[in-house]
Amino acid sequence: MPVLGVDIGGTKLAAALICEDGTIIRKEYWELGGRKGTEVGSFVTDMIRMFNSGESQTGAVESIGISVPGISYPQTGRVWVPNIEGWTDYPLMDEVRMAVGKIPVTIDNDRACYILGEAWKGKAVGCRDAIFIGVGTGIGAGILVNGSVLRGSSGIAGAIGWLALEPHFLEKYIACGCFEYNASGEGIARVAREMLKENISYSGILRETGPERISARTVFEAFEKHDWLAEKVLLHCVEFWGMAAANLVSLFNPRMIIFGGGIFGPAGKLLAKIKEEAEKWAQPVSMKEVGFEVSGLGGDAGIYGAGYLALKRLADEIQ
Amino acid sequence: MPVLGVDIGGTKLAAALICEDGTIIRKEYWELGGRKGTEVGSFVTDMIRMFNSGESQTGAVESIGISVPGISYPQTGRVWVPNIEGWTDYPLMDEVRMAVGKIPVTIDNDRACYILGEAWKGKAVGCRDAIFIGVGTGIGAGILVNGSVLRGSSGIAGAIGWLALEPHFLEKYIACGCFEYNASGEGIARVAREMLKENISYSGILRETGPERISARTVFEAFEKHDWLAEKVLLHCVEFWGMAAANLVSLFNPRMIIFGGGIFGPAGKLLAKIKEEAEKWAQPVSMKEVGFEVSGLGGDAGIYGAGYLALKRLADEIQ
Repeated sequence: MPVLGVDIGGTKLAAALICEDGTIIRKEYWELGGRKGTEVGSFVTDMIRMFNSGESQTGAVESIGISVPGISYPQTGRVWVPNIEGWTDYPLMDEVRMAVGKIPVTIDNDRACYILGEAWKGKAVGCRDAIFIGVGTGIGAGILVNGSVLRGSSGIAGAIGWLALEPHFLEKYIACGCFEYNASGEGIARVAREMLKENISYSGILRETGPERISARTVFEAFEKHDWLAEKVLLHCVEFWGMAAANLVSLFNPRMIIFGGGIFGPAGKLLAKIKEEAEKWAQPVSMKEVGFEVSGLGGDAGIYGAGYLALKRLADEIQ
Repeated sequence: MPVLGVDIGGTKLAAALICEDGTIIRKEYWELGGRKGTEVGSFVTDMIRMFNSGESQTGAVESIGISVPGISYPQTGRVWVPNIEGWTDYPLMDEVRMAVGKIPVTIDNDRACYILGEAWKGKAVGCRDAIFIGVGTGIGAGILVNGSVLRGSSGIAGAIGWLALEPHFLEKYIACGCFEYNASGEGIARVAREMLKENISYSGILRETGPERISARTVFEAFEKHDWLAEKVLLHCVEFWGMAAANLVSLFNPRMIIFGGGIFGPAGKLLAKIKEEAEKWAQPVSMKEVGFEVSGLGGDAGIYGAGYLALKRLADEIQ
């Protein structure tokens, strides 16, 4: 009785047939390859049909969970996905339902899926209060409060990229928020470019790279080679990551904080420093009770979360 | 069928007989007058007995709710109240139960009671997602998530006094946290003293007051008289209040943010400026959907919240 967990990203699509105990029977991964609008919709439904056909040799899919990198509106079944062209108000639920008939379909945002995946099969197993901090191109959080995902009054809770962490407000924060400006993947590159400009005498690796070619990746590579400007950039990020995590600890009194997304990855080795920074700021009793971890599921957190949605839907329908 | 709402403060005790519809039949207020330990316990139980006796001429109390300014441990019935001497691990539930027999008793912390009171009879009526920011001697928050009070894994969620809002960490934040250091009632006085020291040429009202006599009250009085240093102190607080409120908006996507506690009060007239500051920082969609208000219940928020606890307990027992 497998379910299908589907993880739609801004540039890729991943899916897996998953058993009730979390065993992955089959996992596939595709690049979206510049597809947009209904092309992405067809790509998703073709993939689901393929998994659901005899080809898969694993029996029919019983339930489908889908993770989207944006907002899912459960009332209408529509999604808002800024990184897929033409998906600003896309009827994903209707399209998938048309393709799969009676199989139940559940759609949720990626931040919710990440923390549900971690609580099911990752670093937050057994935690009813846990937070996933996703640091990639942007920054967002999936927050588990007493076993349920925090939604807020209109479904957009967890927008931690907007955390105010340094007075005074600057115009440059308008598009993405203070925390994201300083410490997302894009933020690392931005801060590196700013520091390059400020440190005229610096002539290291990032100077050779040049501002237009600087990215989070090049900063981490220079950091590995003990480039002092790269170290300065990442210590700046460590301070912001630590302050933000501390704020989540003081507010939510969670059992676990999990860092994930593309930047954790390479920033994983900074975890001890991030925790050290958080320990300075956070409510001390809550801080003693919380664990800091890097995601153990890596790129599969979305698939596991979507699979969990699908299984939970089945369990709810049986009740 | 009235219930009794009891609000224990650090220096006072208030209680009211409340009907199911929120009507207050009788309200009383006493100073604790230096009582400590079991003296406070006896004072509370004497007061409850008095309300429950024939004297009250309103029928027997059906249920009792108690708000404490600290932490309540529902498993043990004990409370931790730092501002009452001898109440670091006090068996309040046992003591009250001994005094009242079979009447159900519910104890909760003041932050939870404040937001429950506001959601029942104050500025958050009808809101399932709302936050009470209490600014008095310290700072704390009562947070309502989908109709339930946010507790965290060990019951100490909402410790917003510890919010990290300005890098870099300073030793002076150790005892109470960065936000509380800068913007609580005590914080206003601290910041005023620091600014007095920094602005040597200043010779206004706060200079005459002198650092040892400066308090939040004297700063607000000087502000009323357009003293520029007092204005500078309070604009500093407005920035911190705005940033903290923005962070709660981005994280919780609530319908309502309510400022209360002794400082709101006089800081109520700064609400528009605080909202203006928050608008710069917060997730813009969430910010458009949230209301900012000053508590409409004032000093009675705790009584209403405790009364709500008592009524909810009755309703739960009937089910």
